Amino acid sequence: MNGETDTTGQWLRKAATAARAASNVLARLPGPARDAGLRAAAAAIRLRAPQIESANARDVAAFDAGGGTDAFRDRLLLTAPRIEAMAKGLEDIAALPDPLARTLADWTRPNGLRIRRVAQPLGVIGMIYESRPNVGADAAGLCLKSGNAVILRGGSDSNHSARAVHAAINAGLRAASVPEAAVQIAPGTDRSFVAAMLAGSGLIDLIIPRGGRSLVERVQAEARVPVLAHAEGLCHTYVHSGANHAMARRLVANAKMRRTGVCGATETLLIDAAIAPALLRDIVADLAELGCISRGDARARTLVPAMPEATEQDFHTEWLGPTISIAVVDGVEQALDHIARYGSSHTEAIVTQDEKAADHFLRFCDSAVTLWNASTQFCDGSEFGFGAEIGIATGRVQARGPVGLEQLTSFRYVIVGTGQIRP
Amino acid sequence: MNGETDTTGQWLRKAATAARAASNVLARLPGPARDAGLRAAAAAIRLRAPQIESANARDVAAFDAGGGTDAFRDRLLLTAPRIEAMAKGLEDIAALPDPLARTLADWTRPNGLRIRRVAQPLGVIGMIYESRPNVGADAAGLCLKSGNAVILRGGSDSNHSARAVHAAINAGLRAASVPEAAVQIAPGTDRSFVAAMLAGSGLIDLIIPRGGRSLVERVQAEARVPVLAHAEGLCHTYVHSGANHAMARRLVANAKMRRTGVCGATETLLIDAAIAPALLRDIVADLAELGCISRGDARARTLVPAMPEATEQDFHTEWLGPTISIAVVDGVEQALDHIARYGSSHTEAIVTQDEKAADHFLRFCDSAVTLWNASTQFCDGSEFGFGAEIGIATGRVQARGPVGLEQLTSFRYVIVGTGQIRP
Repeated sequence: MNGETDTTGQWLRKAATAARAASNVLARLPGPARDAGLRAAAAAIRLRAPQIESANARDVAAFDAGGGTDAFRDRLLLTAPRIEAMAKGLEDIAALPDPLARTLADWTRPNGLRIRRVAQPLGVIGMIYESRPNVGADAAGLCLKSGNAVILRGGSDSNHSARAVHAAINAGLRAASVPEAAVQIAPGTDRSFVAAMLAGSGLIDLIIPRGGRSLVERVQAEARVPVLAHAEGLCHTYVHSGANHAMARRLVANAKMRRTGVCGATETLLIDAAIAPALLRDIVADLAELGCISRGDARARTLVPAMPEATEQDFHTEWLGPTISIAVVDGVEQALDHIARYGSSHTEAIVTQDEKAADHFLRFCDSAVTLWNASTQFCDGSEFGFGAEIGIATGRVQARGPVGLEQLTSFRYVIVGTGQIRP
Repeated sequence: MNGETDTTGQWLRKAATAARAASNVLARLPGPARDAGLRAAAAAIRLRAPQIESANARDVAAFDAGGGTDAFRDRLLLTAPRIEAMAKGLEDIAALPDPLARTLADWTRPNGLRIRRVAQPLGVIGMIYESRPNVGADAAGLCLKSGNAVILRGGSDSNHSARAVHAAINAGLRAASVPEAAVQIAPGTDRSFVAAMLAGSGLIDLIIPRGGRSLVERVQAEARVPVLAHAEGLCHTYVHSGANHAMARRLVANAKMRRTGVCGATETLLIDAAIAPALLRDIVADLAELGCISRGDARARTLVPAMPEATEQDFHTEWLGPTISIAVVDGVEQALDHIARYGSSHTEAIVTQDEKAADHFLRFCDSAVTLWNASTQFCDGSEFGFGAEIGIATGRVQARGPVGLEQLTSFRYVIVGTGQIRP
């Protein structure tokens, strides 16, 4: 990543100072005033939908001129329903409970001091994202709701779209008398803006990168500011010997194929040797019918010889497409060992009717999300009931798993005494 | 700080890998087994007290040969009662509730999925500290209790002492069959070990520096790993016009002079113009009697002309000694403005009988700890009821204020379904 320049360093200091002042105002606004800002931003997005569409058309035209994948083009494209969904998303966030109106703990000490731990915004969030323009709107909504200011830095491909969305949100905030500096966008898409944000220790409290693995890994490697992110979602579904056959087939098919490009999609199937002879052929056939290629280890291929061989590297691969790696294992411990060796601590599921096996798996699997008899594709903020999510974290500091409003807050202590001095 | 070398980089990879494996074991040990490890470590410290004392004598002799301040020598010195206090501290931590036995949230989704957020260790903590050998023991105790492995890097001045304490703790862990790699110490005190730890993204989950401001600031500036720390404790006591005079005198004297070298000591007194004529002279006299020099701004000096003048720089100064800066202000807003401008977001107190003024101050003061009618010196983990504290954080990610066991944990999600697939 190119280095921070004098210009971008100065930009960041100015932007972050304004952002912190805005966060201080936001933190003190009553919840309904922050919600009014969100609703006004939604209204402004609806009002400016034509401008947003034409800005997006410029980005899409540039993309088409350059060529690229259909998946990328689809992520970039803003249609009228997608713009409406963006506005509706902000209203949905406004309707959620106020994450700042929470007393997290409250106790009284023997000397009579009453100590309360109360929620407080983190401060200034840096959001670095790539092609999808709605990421900027979701991030702005979640940050505003939680009293944080956000500095957005979108990708160059979606530059016009991101700016049009940002301009609409700012117009809404202005109308609702919420400080506009609470939602800022980097003035350029040059990498030096990213470098300045990553170097912004003391200016930015938290960086959230959303995008491909290479972006996230670069951010994680270079940031001098805490980062919430996942670089990889190499998720496993483990079919235990005690699984219900029909449920296992349904869950594997959904976990792998509902959407293959999401980070919660299953990439590797582990199946017990005791159940594989009766079940693996059907699972592979189900997947094939959905267009998925199965690659099996040697033991799996003795049961389904038509499968291509899965290499060691395949088990390290996050397919993000219609391919699955399959390994036969001997029980929960071997499944956990495989996950510890190849997994990314993101999301894993066990399918079984055996409560003891499930308990063991749920206890000893050390991933952000572990499921019993449910699809790994449930690893998603909206499925958790968080409203939108700003990302999914596989680190352990501040948050893990889908990051919602609560994880965008910090806390502080408020102590009430009656003149106590410390002995 | 000198850069990481190949040797120290290799050391860190090896140490951190062993530490992570140990944390994985610790995380799965029942609470009583972790507590047994702590008690065995305490017993081993008592048993090896003579070795620890003689190791400490070497450090103190080297210090005396080099010369230095009495305060520093006192921090370095381990007496028999101090060694006993170290052992007792580990037993006190063992007696605290298990921070891993907590379900932080538990809810059921409309589709029947039951989602639980459960406490989980952070993983591997890097503890960088200076002269006080007991910091290593406290850190080891809190980390073990919370299922974390810790890599200690003590200062060169206390090198023999830190190693003797570490050896005793390891002997205790060995006796209790707790993995010794859970508590490691850097093999040298060369700065390249610190550099390797700060560069240990992905290997170390969290760095906690304890020591002087220059150490902490260097760590904060250079770390590529999240840092929990405070560089400065520039704390304020604000005497509001509605204060009880006797209480104000008692609180200011305690907040400033109980111990002047702690980060929660008050460094600046703010006093309302409406009450200062009746009270300031007494406060200054109380402080003088305790050996404290008061420095006043122009308004304060019209009331107590004998005071030396407080410069602008004085209000930016964390005295950590028997000096206090005094400014006269006109009400809560001016006090908050002064704190926002000169403070370090650590700890501030208001003294008043006026509930409305107190509420305003408690709501709008954005420090880690804000007190009403109590001494700022209460900003301390043991006074919060946390048992020992591993440090005090003025950042906002993961923790703020005194950092206890709960703040040394992360969480993960456990989801129980009945075969749900995602639509």
